[in-house]
Amino acid sequence: MDHDFVEREQDRLLRELTGFLAIPSISALPDHATDCRRAADWLVAEFRRLGFPVVELLEGRGHPVVWAESPRVEGRPTLLVYGHYDVQPVDPLDEWVSPPFQATVRDGRLYARGAVDDKGQVFTLLKAYEAVRDADGLPPVNIRFIIEGEEESGGHAIDELLTREPERTTADAVVVADMGYYAPGLPAVYTALRGICYAEIHCRTLQRDLHSGSYGGVAPNAIETLVRILAGLKDESGEIHVPRVYKSVVPPTREELKTWKKLPFDKQEFLEHEVTGKALTGRKDFSILERIWALPTLEIHGIRGGFTGEGAKTVIPAAAVAKVSLRLVPGNTYEATLAALGKAVRRLAPRWADVEVRPVHGSDPVQVDVSHPAFGVLDEAFEEVVGKRTVSVRAGGSIPVVAKLGQGGAPVLLTGIGLPDDGLHSPNEKVDLQQVWDGIRVFGRFFEKMGENGRG
Amino acid sequence: MDHDFVEREQDRLLRELTGFLAIPSISALPDHATDCRRAADWLVAEFRRLGFPVVELLEGRGHPVVWAESPRVEGRPTLLVYGHYDVQPVDPLDEWVSPPFQATVRDGRLYARGAVDDKGQVFTLLKAYEAVRDADGLPPVNIRFIIEGEEESGGHAIDELLTREPERTTADAVVVADMGYYAPGLPAVYTALRGICYAEIHCRTLQRDLHSGSYGGVAPNAIETLVRILAGLKDESGEIHVPRVYKSVVPPTREELKTWKKLPFDKQEFLEHEVTGKALTGRKDFSILERIWALPTLEIHGIRGGFTGEGAKTVIPAAAVAKVSLRLVPGNTYEATLAALGKAVRRLAPRWADVEVRPVHGSDPVQVDVSHPAFGVLDEAFEEVVGKRTVSVRAGGSIPVVAKLGQGGAPVLLTGIGLPDDGLHSPNEKVDLQQVWDGIRVFGRFFEKMGENGRG
Repeated sequence: MDHDFVEREQDRLLRELTGFLAIPSISALPDHATDCRRAADWLVAEFRRLGFPVVELLEGRGHPVVWAESPRVEGRPTLLVYGHYDVQPVDPLDEWVSPPFQATVRDGRLYARGAVDDKGQVFTLLKAYEAVRDADGLPPVNIRFIIEGEEESGGHAIDELLTREPERTTADAVVVADMGYYAPGLPAVYTALRGICYAEIHCRTLQRDLHSGSYGGVAPNAIETLVRILAGLKDESGEIHVPRVYKSVVPPTREELKTWKKLPFDKQEFLEHEVTGKALTGRKDFSILERIWALPTLEIHGIRGGFTGEGAKTVIPAAAVAKVSLRLVPGNTYEATLAALGKAVRRLAPRWADVEVRPVHGSDPVQVDVSHPAFGVLDEAFEEVVGKRTVSVRAGGSIPVVAKLGQGGAPVLLTGIGLPDDGLHSPNEKVDLQQVWDGIRVFGRFFEKMGENGRG
Repeated sequence: MDHDFVEREQDRLLRELTGFLAIPSISALPDHATDCRRAADWLVAEFRRLGFPVVELLEGRGHPVVWAESPRVEGRPTLLVYGHYDVQPVDPLDEWVSPPFQATVRDGRLYARGAVDDKGQVFTLLKAYEAVRDADGLPPVNIRFIIEGEEESGGHAIDELLTREPERTTADAVVVADMGYYAPGLPAVYTALRGICYAEIHCRTLQRDLHSGSYGGVAPNAIETLVRILAGLKDESGEIHVPRVYKSVVPPTREELKTWKKLPFDKQEFLEHEVTGKALTGRKDFSILERIWALPTLEIHGIRGGFTGEGAKTVIPAAAVAKVSLRLVPGNTYEATLAALGKAVRRLAPRWADVEVRPVHGSDPVQVDVSHPAFGVLDEAFEEVVGKRTVSVRAGGSIPVVAKLGQGGAPVLLTGIGLPDDGLHSPNEKVDLQQVWDGIRVFGRFFEKMGENGRG
């Protein structure tokens, strides 16, 4: 590995990353379809520049998937490296200190939408590759990149692709660097990801909005009705009232629970600096890590209805809609949860309401066996660069495609360079630049070590 | 009265009304401030054309009030005629069959925002005046018009004006034609109007939005918290949980209750054609008319929080806001209700929430004594033109300025030409053109009869 690469090239790297982050590739918003394609094109150009002989833009029904194969080096293992070039929406825009698509360094941190989720991590892997090429441009290990553009909005295209062409997942190991350290200085691999069941709840009580003066007190109010349904789906203690959602859960193993108890966890620090709230919520009979990693949860992501402009309008709204999702843990399935959510909503709906649960996207939870030797190789690389082996934890988030990426039987290394306070999906998302520079070294060494293993 | 006026001038009248309705004078939306002024200017031009010697545009801190005095006829009574030139917002725009500011006739009805509330009624009064002028342009009675531009958004300007210059309300009778018939063919006068207490409930649980993957299950969700507060303010039976809001109510008199029982009221017809819903809501221990006329109510007008765009965003929202109002009945006051609402919200808020109740506008309920002879004169006019005297009813709506208009001691005749299915404040607001033509005749005869009374 070119050990001076990062020091020498830092200015250029920052410039390149800033360019990648400048593309507002928000996959959930149809208006940004062109931007998603621009981000894919940016990657295609980058792979070509790095001398990848195979670079494909795979078209599906959504945003394209970028596929790239490094020059073939015989007798070496093959890694499949996953990432996504799409980003979350940026609202509320007025809470950003600097514009979300104008990456800005403050205090060693780079602020931008996608800084860590996931463009910054994709970039780290690309530059790790660049750092370990030999004088002829050949890598120490065969690498295939698969970078999708719909991770934040359901991932239809990659799902269809890997269903149609499962041979693309044939590899010695899969790297998914869309995750983060458990804590500063403490890199991690993940043994489970939560699944998700994302849906809209539509509620209609009238054919048209009415005047609250003329009909207030007798006409069914769609917001009021929806509010009562939402309040009924989950109580203040954090318990979800969706049939069988807890009964189907496979609880964590004793060993997992033991490991989690030993993890450093400062509740006050977590509350003040990560959650930024006054109190934590959720089921008191479970630890905080269990609530995030091992329990299904229900969150309301958005609600809209009636008059929400400036000033006053005395309307009884005819319709209202909420966006909700359940995070799923091992034992839950997307299909069963969606059906149960529909049942719960219909049961809570009063006779004057027409309700409908419209699925938006979903994925099953994922479990990963971390006993494969590739995890040991990754540990060595982390130890060499940052002085710490990884801890095995779970994640509250969902990466829908992970199950598909592992279908070829290769171990899936869920890891990454993020930090807990990165604010992914929030205004002022950031990545610590030191994490990027370290990450380039860690993944570079991982590539080299995997290559050596293959040779040995 | 020029009895052929309406038949002869119908085409011109419709053209003029269409022009007035084309001005999008939405007082609640700051972007439409210029349009409000254009509507005021339209009235100023009209009063000048009708030969009013005094026409004033009275500036206050909001939209201007138009004041116009007819040529002085000695020995005749003076009427003060109130109306408003501002209209409600038009969203949801996509539910309008024809554009809201492009008045369109379908089946004898004129569809436009403001068609009946209140531009169509102001127009009716103006044209009644035009129809009863003599050859010299002199009216049969002295008329002062006071037309405000903030009825739909709190009415600050007129309130300040009439507080500062109470002498403007010195009159023999006040006409407020912002109301409607009780039923088709059954004109009405109103003995009480509900007051209103309109406020926003702001709820914040986090300093920033969070990712539901990382924090779902432990971070307090602002929408969920607000939803639970809203559900706690009113239960499914329609009972409001705001301190003293029922205890302070002065119930309707036995006579009122007797009159209301005799009114034609078809519950099924009301539900299907007016409410356009599947069931009525509210307190089962009161009749439907009592719920609308004699009980305070709480309605949620709008709610906003989190991600409400197209697609999916897995955010735990940090803040959410709802617009609500209580309609107030005799015995309730705006100030006491606002304080009680604040108390109720704070009591319902969990320890992790910062809540704030921000007043938007409010007014006390109004009671009107209908025993003054002017009501008999109005009855005669209605009987002559449409064959029916008025019934005494109440109204669920609020006209904040009514109390101020009556401060000079003159009887306030709350009446109008609307019909129950006009859809005021809704998409596809309309006015029946026959109601306008009849209204011109009714008010024309009322002006003449009031003039004759003054002479006699």
